[in-house]
Amino acid sequence: MEYELFYWPTIQGRGEFVRLALEEAGAAYVDVARKRNGTAAMMAVLEAETTPSFAPPFLKAGQLTIGQTANILMFLGARHGLAPRAEAGRLWAHQLQLTIADLVSEVHDTHHPIGTTLYYDEQKKEAKRRAKDFIAHRIPKYFNYFEGVLGARGFMLGSRLSTVDLSIFQVMEGLRYAFPNAMLRLEPHYPALVALHAKVALRPNIAAYLASKRRIPFNENGIFRRYPELDPA
Amino acid sequence: MEYELFYWPTIQGRGEFVRLALEEAGAAYVDVARKRNGTAAMMAVLEAETTPSFAPPFLKAGQLTIGQTANILMFLGARHGLAPRAEAGRLWAHQLQLTIADLVSEVHDTHHPIGTTLYYDEQKKEAKRRAKDFIAHRIPKYFNYFEGVLGARGFMLGSRLSTVDLSIFQVMEGLRYAFPNAMLRLEPHYPALVALHAKVALRPNIAAYLASKRRIPFNENGIFRRYPELDPA
Repeated sequence: MEYELFYWPTIQGRGEFVRLALEEAGAAYVDVARKRNGTAAMMAVLEAETTPSFAPPFLKAGQLTIGQTANILMFLGARHGLAPRAEAGRLWAHQLQLTIADLVSEVHDTHHPIGTTLYYDEQKKEAKRRAKDFIAHRIPKYFNYFEGVLGARGFMLGSRLSTVDLSIFQVMEGLRYAFPNAMLRLEPHYPALVALHAKVALRPNIAAYLASKRRIPFNENGIFRRYPELDPA
Repeated sequence: MEYELFYWPTIQGRGEFVRLALEEAGAAYVDVARKRNGTAAMMAVLEAETTPSFAPPFLKAGQLTIGQTANILMFLGARHGLAPRAEAGRLWAHQLQLTIADLVSEVHDTHHPIGTTLYYDEQKKEAKRRAKDFIAHRIPKYFNYFEGVLGARGFMLGSRLSTVDLSIFQVMEGLRYAFPNAMLRLEPHYPALVALHAKVALRPNIAAYLASKRRIPFNENGIFRRYPELDPA
């Protein structure tokens, strides 16, 4: 069975967390809006579903259509050995995944603190204030938490890679792109997270993916955006 | 077994979504910070856990400690007949629960668009802009979606009550408290959601809970806050 991933075709965004899981698993999938027929067709599929999503990404897996990034990752994790099997481990993995989702939403709001219906330029002043708070308080709060969970273990859940590690990798990638100055200052305090990022990047399937054209470069339409005024030296 | 719920003792907040599920299920639970020993002890428990939460609420269920509101509800839903049993239904229920969680985060940011480390008065101007956008665009977008899912079915997932219905009830309650003027204008467009809210309120366990002292009144420390300047007539 070939998965069908539905997500905006020109950005990494939330879809990237799903792409990384599919790539690590070596799963057969088509990135529908990129490979086949674009955004308009994706939205038509979305609206025709009996379990419609509020927004992309969503994944078709045979008869199932699954929305919400963390929900998709829970599903893929169970299918592809990227999550624990026992209940306690599954719940813990998903709890961490949801905490990453919260962080990602906060990243988005650094450039859109007022609303998604307004352009960045219409909320730049507010974005500067929010980004300053995000760098000073929120990144450290999340990173302290994740660094504490990871500790001396090899991966976030212990000895085996999971979707959580792939998502931590993507968060580090994204924050380095969006806030390079802040990350230069912050990273020395989080050696375990830095090491985890490096380890994920070297996994054969991930390394091949990152070097491929399937990996869309970061840009200023996605969640992680580089606006120099939000990341002072 | 008696559940232990850990949440801030003076607000409904995200903990209320868990309380409603426990109450509907008739489950035995203690609201630890309220009944036993306050916030400081709660935070000590949080930090001592092997699966620590980023923030309350978290739930202790025997050997398990579970964080993230939607994750807790997925667990309780499966245990207490408040979620479908089959995989497709479970994923769909959780997808809706996560979409409600996204809405709740946006409600929070109407009064804290810049950061949680600042007081409301320090971001009131930005809050006015964000609340205006939230009322004009975001409530309708979410409500259109949920109204479409609910349609002519009795409950969000079909013929049986689930945690999703309890959470929709709480969102309606909260939005009526925080934005009474906006809701007066909006509600006529969402008759199914209004009817669902009324139906949930009449369920015996929920009605008893709402009339009890266990239900903390809304206030301006929680997620749903009534600031008249954010809800013009």
